[in-house]
Amino acid sequence: MTTDPHPWAASLDGLYTQVWQRLVRGVGDRHAPARHPTFATVSPDGWPEARTVVLRGADRADAVVEVHTDLQSAKVAALRANPRAALHIWEASAHLQIRLGVTVTILSGDAVAQIWARVPDPSRQSYGTTPAPGQPIADALAYDKPGDPASFAVLRCMVQAMDVVHLGPQHRRAAFTRADGWAGQWLAP
Amino acid sequence: MTTDPHPWAASLDGLYTQVWQRLVRGVGDRHAPARHPTFATVSPDGWPEARTVVLRGADRADAVVEVHTDLQSAKVAALRANPRAALHIWEASAHLQIRLGVTVTILSGDAVAQIWARVPDPSRQSYGTTPAPGQPIADALAYDKPGDPASFAVLRCMVQAMDVVHLGPQHRRAAFTRADGWAGQWLAP
Repeated sequence: MTTDPHPWAASLDGLYTQVWQRLVRGVGDRHAPARHPTFATVSPDGWPEARTVVLRGADRADAVVEVHTDLQSAKVAALRANPRAALHIWEASAHLQIRLGVTVTILSGDAVAQIWARVPDPSRQSYGTTPAPGQPIADALAYDKPGDPASFAVLRCMVQAMDVVHLGPQHRRAAFTRADGWAGQWLAP
Repeated sequence: MTTDPHPWAASLDGLYTQVWQRLVRGVGDRHAPARHPTFATVSPDGWPEARTVVLRGADRADAVVEVHTDLQSAKVAALRANPRAALHIWEASAHLQIRLGVTVTILSGDAVAQIWARVPDPSRQSYGTTPAPGQPIADALAYDKPGDPASFAVLRCMVQAMDVVHLGPQHRRAAFTRADGWAGQWLAP
């Protein structure tokens, strides 16, 4: 008789708790899969776009996650036109796909000064790239990374819905929404 | 003196060739990172959506990649409303982020009968789930997977643009487009 390695997948509560445990671990552990979600947006001209981000905050009580980015990046331009994003994480060891649908508030300037104060020096270089990220340059290394606090932005992502898939001997899939108080609903996988 | 482990990242040609080598390896090797891209679409009501898919084809000459899916899935509904998708791959060992912008043709029925004939039995169960994938069900396992060829769809993804980032001692980023014959352009990372 084998023991089920993922007993939490059998209940909606168990799945929901597992998702938040993995998200919180991603913030604290740079080797956890949830450290690096794929972050999808819709460009101003209607193209889906996806890129890797670093998960910087995860709070189950408010159902909010946070990401830092350059204020001049394409994802900020996309979010200004359509403030909705999707985060995707594949937790291989748990056989768990986590998908979050979020609405995003873009914070910068004074509102994030206290967060900037805690960003370590090497990470600060990611903000304020000149020319701006994604702009054409004549040579591969024709850019500067001055570390400009004016370009530092925090994407505060309010989770509106989750779609969770567990790939076990029998697959399970569930949806959780803010609107239903995260009670959850099983879906055909 | 250390040897650069990724000399291909120094030239546009080198980067472009590396991307296609990784994509082709993903089709053939189930353990390669490019085996499981994240596939982003825009839902009919304008939400970005992202999920893991399996890469089933990659052809550099035509710049086309292929994915199989259930004709009743949400991604097909999304692509019928907006036939544009993004594929995202993170190749950890190469420090390489691959992003593809693609236009998608949905093929099914007679057009894919020869492809269906080569789908192995266990994989066939992924098609024709009843109720359809994503539909609410009363219990976690209240679904069937009959393996229905009528629900088998091939997403033929014509690559229109690529955005490639190499994270080395100095980061490099390049765009490649079908419109410019894949010549490539360096971008600020």
